[in-house]
Amino acid sequence: MNIEPPDPSLATRIIVTGGTFDKHYDAIKGELTFKNSHLPAILEQSRVTIPIAIEINQLIDSLHMLDEHRDRVLTSCRNAPEKCIVVIHGTDTMAQTAQVVGQAGLDKTIVFTGAMIPYSVQGSDALFNLGFALATAQSMAPNTYVAMNGRVFTWDQVRKNKTDGVFEAPQLNVT
Amino acid sequence: MNIEPPDPSLATRIIVTGGTFDKHYDAIKGELTFKNSHLPAILEQSRVTIPIAIEINQLIDSLHMLDEHRDRVLTSCRNAPEKCIVVIHGTDTMAQTAQVVGQAGLDKTIVFTGAMIPYSVQGSDALFNLGFALATAQSMAPNTYVAMNGRVFTWDQVRKNKTDGVFEAPQLNVT
Amino acid sequence: MNIEPPDPSLATRIIVTGGTFDKHYDAIKGELTFKNSHLPAILEQSRVTIPIAIEINQLIDSLHMLDEHRDRVLTSCRNAPEKCIVVIHGTDTMAQTAQVVGQAGLDKTIVFTGAMIPYSVQGSDALFNLGFALATAQSMAPNTYVAMNGRVFTWDQVRKNKTDGVFEAPQLNVT
Amino acid sequence: MNIEPPDPSLATRIIVTGGTFDKHYDAIKGELTFKNSHLPAILEQSRVTIPIAIEINQLIDSLHMLDEHRDRVLTSCRNAPEKCIVVIHGTDTMAQTAQVVGQAGLDKTIVFTGAMIPYSVQGSDALFNLGFALATAQSMAPNTYVAMNGRVFTWDQVRKNKTDGVFEAPQLNVT
Repeated sequence: MNIEPPDPSLATRIIVTGGTFDKHYDAIKGELTFKNSHLPAILEQSRVTIPIAIEINQLIDSLHMLDEHRDRVLTSCRNAPEKCIVVIHGTDTMAQTAQVVGQAGLDKTIVFTGAMIPYSVQGSDALFNLGFALATAQSMAPNTYVAMNGRVFTWDQVRKNKTDGVFEAPQLNVT
Repeated sequence: MNIEPPDPSLATRIIVTGGTFDKHYDAIKGELTFKNSHLPAILEQSRVTIPIAIEINQLIDSLHMLDEHRDRVLTSCRNAPEKCIVVIHGTDTMAQTAQVVGQAGLDKTIVFTGAMIPYSVQGSDALFNLGFALATAQSMAPNTYVAMNGRVFTWDQVRKNKTDGVFEAPQLNVT
Repeated sequence: MNIEPPDPSLATRIIVTGGTFDKHYDAIKGELTFKNSHLPAILEQSRVTIPIAIEINQLIDSLHMLDEHRDRVLTSCRNAPEKCIVVIHGTDTMAQTAQVVGQAGLDKTIVFTGAMIPYSVQGSDALFNLGFALATAQSMAPNTYVAMNGRVFTWDQVRKNKTDGVFEAPQLNVT
Repeated sequence: MNIEPPDPSLATRIIVTGGTFDKHYDAIKGELTFKNSHLPAILEQSRVTIPIAIEINQLIDSLHMLDEHRDRVLTSCRNAPEKCIVVIHGTDTMAQTAQVVGQAGLDKTIVFTGAMIPYSVQGSDALFNLGFALATAQSMAPNTYVAMNGRVFTWDQVRKNKTDGVFEAPQLNVT
């Protein structure tokens, strides 16, 4: 009996755009900023054995994202050879970028996630969210999703509640 | 526009059985042992908003599990009102207990997970695995699975490679 | 043979003024800010058995300190019944406040310390610095000191090198 | 005005012997064990700028120490060119080894410390104790001490209370 390698269809691309998830404390400046992505260290910690490609798309705060920044995410999703994609994104405008990508209707399972507390800070939700997003990317039908707070939202049914710091689905008024 | 509450079908039960995931350092004894489950703290850290029921089934090392311990897990899975179940289990005999539960053929999505490094120790994979397992429980068809190393295995196609400390699918020889 | 209680002369007051040491990540605002002091939790973690009084004097960034804020620290040092005092302070103007307190020439051992990385962030120097400062407060002759980077500086022979993020003693030119 | 380098008399040797302080979680064996010392990483985290020599004397559990192991610590203390020495030691027999070294009456300040919870486990006292011990080694008169629980004990007036997990001074009965 030999060992079967992981199914190649599970190969996943993680597209890193910055956001709280990846912030790093700069001891000289005394503030949280971007330096390098924590993704390679996080994946090692997660003991993942499926093939993962990490792509540093940009490292910015999502409040500073312009249309061109969101287009860059869409282009990466379009060009990715993988069928499973996780996008690490700031939470403040995650829903907007997910909308840009979702409207393109790519035949891939694209899952946006991020963190409310940086990976490098005590009590971070980053590792949980990454695990949640990776499983979602492997198991859901092709579409674009936001995976936060232990829930999966489709791109056109999600917004961030900035008061409570949670993602929620707006309810359509049915008449 | 009102806020839609999470879909009640996402309600998930987490059945805790102990294992490395939940070990705690006892400063007096100088060893890793079981005291209370870390699950309530972990879920708070994960910022999960779906309804979760936590059930402390047992708190033991999976190497010490006898048939009666595995049966207790099966009974809990059978009795759970939820359709989505995550079982936190020691890695050493996770595949065996998954087999006991899987053979029962319950109409629920039951996902076993655990950790190679305890939640309370630097570099733990516990948070990642919990996130991965929760998403799997929500999105996969009813069956029993093992979710470790960023992969989902069905209960009859998984074993732990104790040399490398990873889960893998044994390959059937086809003649 | 009975147990001798700790020498009452070791009783120590920790005066908290804020600074990087005590910053806390606010997930809603998405920034490091002040909420409560981490000192009670840190002392529990440190397993200290000597009597410690914690005084929250203020919780501000030391770059925002005015003369009145430094005077408030001096007043607390003067009024403290203890002979051993540790002041938790932001690093940016720690040397200035130490100078204000040092010039008062109180008959107490007063030790300023802080952190370059907050207690709540990975890789923090806060716990090390607190231990270093507490021992200095117990063992050095009455005077005012800055204890950072594993070194003890007297209040009139210390400055922060903001380029390298370390404390150093300016060298007097001898002619 | 130039920068004065640290006083060379502050040069400190850290003699590592193992103990809880330096234990590491082995994910394959599923237990806390010794691999490499964490001291180099800890000193970097502590941002120490004084000259420190790290000597890996042995890496064992102090319950397994025999006379020859304690003699090896004494020999290292005797041979050290530095006047300030910190010995990282398991807590269970720290008092015994301190007695062996203390009776030798070396003209150095030798400070034993350790941890009740390993550096690599949440809630560790290791960083605090190291800072406390380093300051004690720099500031106290030559002798051998145990520095734990935020207190300094001389080598002939200390024991570990194994029930409470704290160090204390036995009280001499005066008649």
